Amino acid sequence: MTSGKKGIIERLNAGEVVIGDGGFVFALEKRGYVKAGPWTPEATVTHPEAVRQLHREFLRAGSNVMQTFTFYASDDKLENRGQNLKISGAKINEAACDLAREVASEGDAIVAGGVCQTPSYLSCKSEIEVKAIFKKQLEVFLKKNVDFLIAEYFEHVEEAEWAVQVLKASGKPVAACMCIGPDGDMHGVSPGDCAVRLVKAGAQIVGINCHFDPETCVKTVKLMKEGVEKARLKAHYMVQPLAFHTPDCSCQGFIDLPEFPFALEPRILTRWDMHTYAREAYKAGIRFIGGCCGFEPYHIRAIAEELATERGILPPASEKHGMWGSGLEMHTKPWVRARARRDYWEHIAPASGRPKCPSLSTPEGWGVTKGHAELMQHKEATSSQEIKHLMEMQKKAKSSA
Amino acid sequence: MTSGKKGIIERLNAGEVVIGDGGFVFALEKRGYVKAGPWTPEATVTHPEAVRQLHREFLRAGSNVMQTFTFYASDDKLENRGQNLKISGAKINEAACDLAREVASEGDAIVAGGVCQTPSYLSCKSEIEVKAIFKKQLEVFLKKNVDFLIAEYFEHVEEAEWAVQVLKASGKPVAACMCIGPDGDMHGVSPGDCAVRLVKAGAQIVGINCHFDPETCVKTVKLMKEGVEKARLKAHYMVQPLAFHTPDCSCQGFIDLPEFPFALEPRILTRWDMHTYAREAYKAGIRFIGGCCGFEPYHIRAIAEELATERGILPPASEKHGMWGSGLEMHTKPWVRARARRDYWEHIAPASGRPKCPSLSTPEGWGVTKGHAELMQHKEATSSQEIKHLMEMQKKAKSSA
Amino acid sequence: MTSGKKGIIERLNAGEVVIGDGGFVFALEKRGYVKAGPWTPEATVTHPEAVRQLHREFLRAGSNVMQTFTFYASDDKLENRGQNLKISGAKINEAACDLAREVASEGDAIVAGGVCQTPSYLSCKSEIEVKAIFKKQLEVFLKKNVDFLIAEYFEHVEEAEWAVQVLKASGKPVAACMCIGPDGDMHGVSPGDCAVRLVKAGAQIVGINCHFDPETCVKTVKLMKEGVEKARLKAHYMVQPLAFHTPDCSCQGFIDLPEFPFALEPRILTRWDMHTYAREAYKAGIRFIGGCCGFEPYHIRAIAEELATERGILPPASEKHGMWGSGLEMHTKPWVRARARRDYWEHIAPASGRPKCPSLSTPEGWGVTKGHAELMQHKEATSSQEIKHLMEMQKKAKSSA
Amino acid sequence: MTSGKKGIIERLNAGEVVIGDGGFVFALEKRGYVKAGPWTPEATVTHPEAVRQLHREFLRAGSNVMQTFTFYASDDKLENRGQNLKISGAKINEAACDLAREVASEGDAIVAGGVCQTPSYLSCKSEIEVKAIFKKQLEVFLKKNVDFLIAEYFEHVEEAEWAVQVLKASGKPVAACMCIGPDGDMHGVSPGDCAVRLVKAGAQIVGINCHFDPETCVKTVKLMKEGVEKARLKAHYMVQPLAFHTPDCSCQGFIDLPEFPFALEPRILTRWDMHTYAREAYKAGIRFIGGCCGFEPYHIRAIAEELATERGILPPASEKHGMWGSGLEMHTKPWVRARARRDYWEHIAPASGRPKCPSLSTPEGWGVTKGHAELMQHKEATSSQEIKHLMEMQKKAKSSA
Repeated sequence: MTSGKKGIIERLNAGEVVIGDGGFVFALEKRGYVKAGPWTPEATVTHPEAVRQLHREFLRAGSNVMQTFTFYASDDKLENRGQNLKISGAKINEAACDLAREVASEGDAIVAGGVCQTPSYLSCKSEIEVKAIFKKQLEVFLKKNVDFLIAEYFEHVEEAEWAVQVLKASGKPVAACMCIGPDGDMHGVSPGDCAVRLVKAGAQIVGINCHFDPETCVKTVKLMKEGVEKARLKAHYMVQPLAFHTPDCSCQGFIDLPEFPFALEPRILTRWDMHTYAREAYKAGIRFIGGCCGFEPYHIRAIAEELATERGILPPASEKHGMWGSGLEMHTKPWVRARARRDYWEHIAPASGRPKCPSLSTPEGWGVTKGHAELMQHKEATSSQEIKHLMEMQKKAKSSA
Repeated sequence: MTSGKKGIIERLNAGEVVIGDGGFVFALEKRGYVKAGPWTPEATVTHPEAVRQLHREFLRAGSNVMQTFTFYASDDKLENRGQNLKISGAKINEAACDLAREVASEGDAIVAGGVCQTPSYLSCKSEIEVKAIFKKQLEVFLKKNVDFLIAEYFEHVEEAEWAVQVLKASGKPVAACMCIGPDGDMHGVSPGDCAVRLVKAGAQIVGINCHFDPETCVKTVKLMKEGVEKARLKAHYMVQPLAFHTPDCSCQGFIDLPEFPFALEPRILTRWDMHTYAREAYKAGIRFIGGCCGFEPYHIRAIAEELATERGILPPASEKHGMWGSGLEMHTKPWVRARARRDYWEHIAPASGRPKCPSLSTPEGWGVTKGHAELMQHKEATSSQEIKHLMEMQKKAKSSA
Repeated sequence: MTSGKKGIIERLNAGEVVIGDGGFVFALEKRGYVKAGPWTPEATVTHPEAVRQLHREFLRAGSNVMQTFTFYASDDKLENRGQNLKISGAKINEAACDLAREVASEGDAIVAGGVCQTPSYLSCKSEIEVKAIFKKQLEVFLKKNVDFLIAEYFEHVEEAEWAVQVLKASGKPVAACMCIGPDGDMHGVSPGDCAVRLVKAGAQIVGINCHFDPETCVKTVKLMKEGVEKARLKAHYMVQPLAFHTPDCSCQGFIDLPEFPFALEPRILTRWDMHTYAREAYKAGIRFIGGCCGFEPYHIRAIAEELATERGILPPASEKHGMWGSGLEMHTKPWVRARARRDYWEHIAPASGRPKCPSLSTPEGWGVTKGHAELMQHKEATSSQEIKHLMEMQKKAKSSA
Repeated sequence: MTSGKKGIIERLNAGEVVIGDGGFVFALEKRGYVKAGPWTPEATVTHPEAVRQLHREFLRAGSNVMQTFTFYASDDKLENRGQNLKISGAKINEAACDLAREVASEGDAIVAGGVCQTPSYLSCKSEIEVKAIFKKQLEVFLKKNVDFLIAEYFEHVEEAEWAVQVLKASGKPVAACMCIGPDGDMHGVSPGDCAVRLVKAGAQIVGINCHFDPETCVKTVKLMKEGVEKARLKAHYMVQPLAFHTPDCSCQGFIDLPEFPFALEPRILTRWDMHTYAREAYKAGIRFIGGCCGFEPYHIRAIAEELATERGILPPASEKHGMWGSGLEMHTKPWVRARARRDYWEHIAPASGRPKCPSLSTPEGWGVTKGHAELMQHKEATSSQEIKHLMEMQKKAKSSA
């Protein structure tokens, strides 16, 4: 470790709780620096001050891990999305590493380089081709000497294994996260089996990120843990869920909800929901606890505050936050002062202010017959044909593999 | 105008739409720089990079006005809140002006210095004492040469008049906003009468900010406009509402909702709700359209996008946002691509993901008998006595005035 | 009074609480004897046992008034609805009187003959023609010697006055109910003014029935009472609301709700909602308290139970009902036994079991621009033209009257 | 068959759809003749006209089966509930048979005698004792010569088997229904295994009644059917669910919902929900389709209307009901006339009119930790002890059996 700080495995082996950061694409989309649809991270080059500030806010909120903002920054992705970016993937990835390192050095955090699923895998490119993409990203991470590596946001365990194998070769610690729910990956591999395969591929930390709410993700990591323990293997566990309530998701997660991605506001978790999440994750034996899409700095702070006793420390940003709402003791109105207590916030059932909206939606997507039918009215036959063809090719490719 | 830019009145007289910014206290609370309860703006001195970044995001989203982050920065407030701040009010206010000016100079924005209601008024200090507080803040604004002044967040029209009178003496343009709903101010003065009194006191722009959702605020500004026109006076109109749905508020606004301030998430407006708001405000003849608590940069951008035709320009941040979700055309999944159209987002009724929560709440507070009764169980008799005494004193003071 | 029982005015003058019955058309529609749409009462002749049984259930539940099931049984209505009934209006009305009398004589109840608004008025027939219709129905009531008369379900106070004038001539006590909300009748006459005009026309009891929920109806009767008292007149007050929650109604009431009449189930009041209603009506000084559409016998029983102390009596059906759920003390499961207490039921917020439905709807109909637009897509232009023409004719006729 | 009508098995073997009736205890509770808590059917003796009328309404709505109103009329139950009834169980049961037969003879219906689970089984009485109770009820059914027998509302398959064995000895056709969901009986026996055991015990028809909503019940009968087919046995299938939406039930069904039994109104199914239910049940291969608690005559009529083509007949009560709301064509207001079409009602998402209520509840009861904890605060320790003791005794008895 260049920084002299304890490494990720050292921390987890010592039984420490490691707090992750939140998802950058959603937070920076709201701030005006990421475009929903392509979701690419060119802001590391074009607006470094915005990326740096978000890193700082997460650090201040208690994050011990600064993930490089390299989501969807593989070359095939950047091309695929028709970005016409005049900035190379390498440049974006390098800038991301520099920003993460700069802020990590301002506090007790280490830097993780991240790779995620590729369009190449989905379009049935070979193992060699897909691995080449991961290798290219890895080169940057090694050049910039990140502290450890995360392969995350994989819907297919096979591609995740390939990523882990590539990353593992670097000698750095490797964490691996699927973006699946209790029903398993897109080919029906159970969470337990996914976890076993990832550990065997070389991951020292396994878990779940994105796609589902904290409750679902913690439940899925529990299933992973059961699988690993049943196979008499060893691993550490991590979880980085959405900050959106998604009890109505189907197997592909929040992307299939009709509200994705521009009307998810009513689903945003409160800080008190985060307390529950942090406690449940901790009780499940998960020690690397962070967030993904929807997380804002105050969500991470809530995790740090819930686990303050276990960690023996409050984050810097807690100077601006009374535990369990105690800051309200200074409010002008007495009935607001009366809310300065744990019992009040722990039991609140917040209203949506939207009496003409339902509380659950019906997900669209493959496998959801009705949503699919409605969908067909709206999209061109061509793209439908195209995608079906893609799916069939993919199925064949996989089954013959 | 030092900057050579058109001033606020010049713009409004020319029929331009002026876009305001969003509320800083809520946005910076989530980012870890403001404490809920006291809500004071010392971050202008302690963490200028965070305040500067938020200004930049609003500018990039289309804001033409950078309001100095001086909310609740009057000396009596800072003391009252037991901050034990070692930073003087003047220093906080000066830093706020510098930050606003610095970012305004990066784009087409001008700087507004803001004052708001004081604890002194509520505790029945004299007109002379209250005006002295406004004067002290004004001195900073004059020293820093802001472009115009806003007196905002007033629950009592009398105090607002005093503020306008003080600000007016500076010779700079003055805008004045009450934080009231259609039922009028806390002494029952109607929105129309409030507006007339503010115009007579010297305000060139009148309107509403904070406390209620956009629908309610636009409705209230309409009542103000009717009052002003009936009195055969002239004014420009502005509105800077919450970004929370609050159909269940009582007369004192969102502060009395049980979710205030830590569980308001399900009420956050989507960007599409903002389109509706911008259109309705425009149709009502309001030309200074901005936001208050709950507004994030993407909310302001949505206003700028809705009124792009009228304004003849899109904001810089629209480079990262396809109009009406068109960025989704690049999404991987066909049913998500099918959402890349106005009709889809205009009619969505987003689910809360919270089937065990209601859609409306019952506000607490004075005048809400039941909430009050429940409240009494939770707070100490002392503070209750204290507040009653305060209220009675206030009533007497006002009626004998 | 043939029966030797105390008359309605005698009871009200003595300060007694008189309990009405529930609406027959909705209850008998569910039982299979009334057709939604025409809503006519031919069952008095074709299925007297069903009508008799419903009378008995209301009597047993505590009703002191058996209203003849003569709703919409004026000849013009029966013809208008294309019933092709081979049964004359007179025969239906006579049978209705006999059934009401038969059951009333089994307990402490008296018989009220009822008339309601006519299609003739809406199609702009003259005062003479409309009054002739009421007279024809009155003849039956006099022949059958009902105990008193109710003119109810009027949307226009003018037609209600005409009805009262006709009924008054009989010498029997007359009650008059509008089916309006706080905004007044369809020509904008306020509830207070409606009440004054009805009292002046000869009604000894005035109030509201149908179209709105109990909360709204009680509120409207209060406005009537204020009007009568301000005019220094005297009257008794009655209320017979819906058993459906309708906070989202527009001025024409539940008919404009999209759920009318076949999907109102989620809005049905619980027995505990009825306790609240009975108490509020009583506190408002209303002493004739009953129900209309949606009321089932157990709803009436709940009114009788809430006012048992004031009335000094429990109804016969209370032998099958423990006050405030006390019958559950005998339940097998302990947690259900734990519900045998007032506090539990008084505070329950019952779930709909419908997470994909909203809690409020948008009413359709004239004056509701959006609903109207949607409507226009569904109905034929002809009928729209027709109805507009009708409305214009009506307006002219009224304004020239 | 005394009546010369086709018997139940004859009908089912011929592929006919047999329509059941609705639950009597809930319907008669609302009408004032059954007490919630004990739920006993003494009204067959004390108020035969009320029971007869309800039978007639179901017959008129399309029911082919008149179930004797003998629910919970075993002697041990009647005693246990502290009824102090001066009427013997035999007398109640005999009267029930006479009423069912009288009305069945008025149309195309046959009579089913019903037995259900006993307190004796729950208090661990022996097989001999429990069977003796069923035998006693059977004697009445044989004396009155019912057409077939239904053993229903069993939470434990063992007791259901005992009942079937007793009834089977009579030589009459026997149907058997559990009141369980997809998770199986109270000892965890799966629906498939329950069905196999009941068929082996002699039941020719197996299925589910009560406790859950139609969707859940149909799903559970499907599991039963799969079990029976896998075991290469043969059976007919029936389903008689609640008329309440219960997506939030735990394994013991609606009894554990906080709304049970006095605040279930918002959950009542509309007639259109019944169309969906009837179609789904039919598609699942179920041919005896009826209802239980919450069903009113119009719910049964909706089943008959949905399956009118398959059955080749509409029920008598359809003379008062236009298919899919077509009766509204005669409504006064054009936007209500516009609702006279299938598409409108099929897609309606009805609002609850209760914006301060949630859409789902948390069930109470054993196995629901949180609900249990709250419960413990409300009930006396004694009854808790008592019930625990009972449960332990029961467990021991069963495991040693």
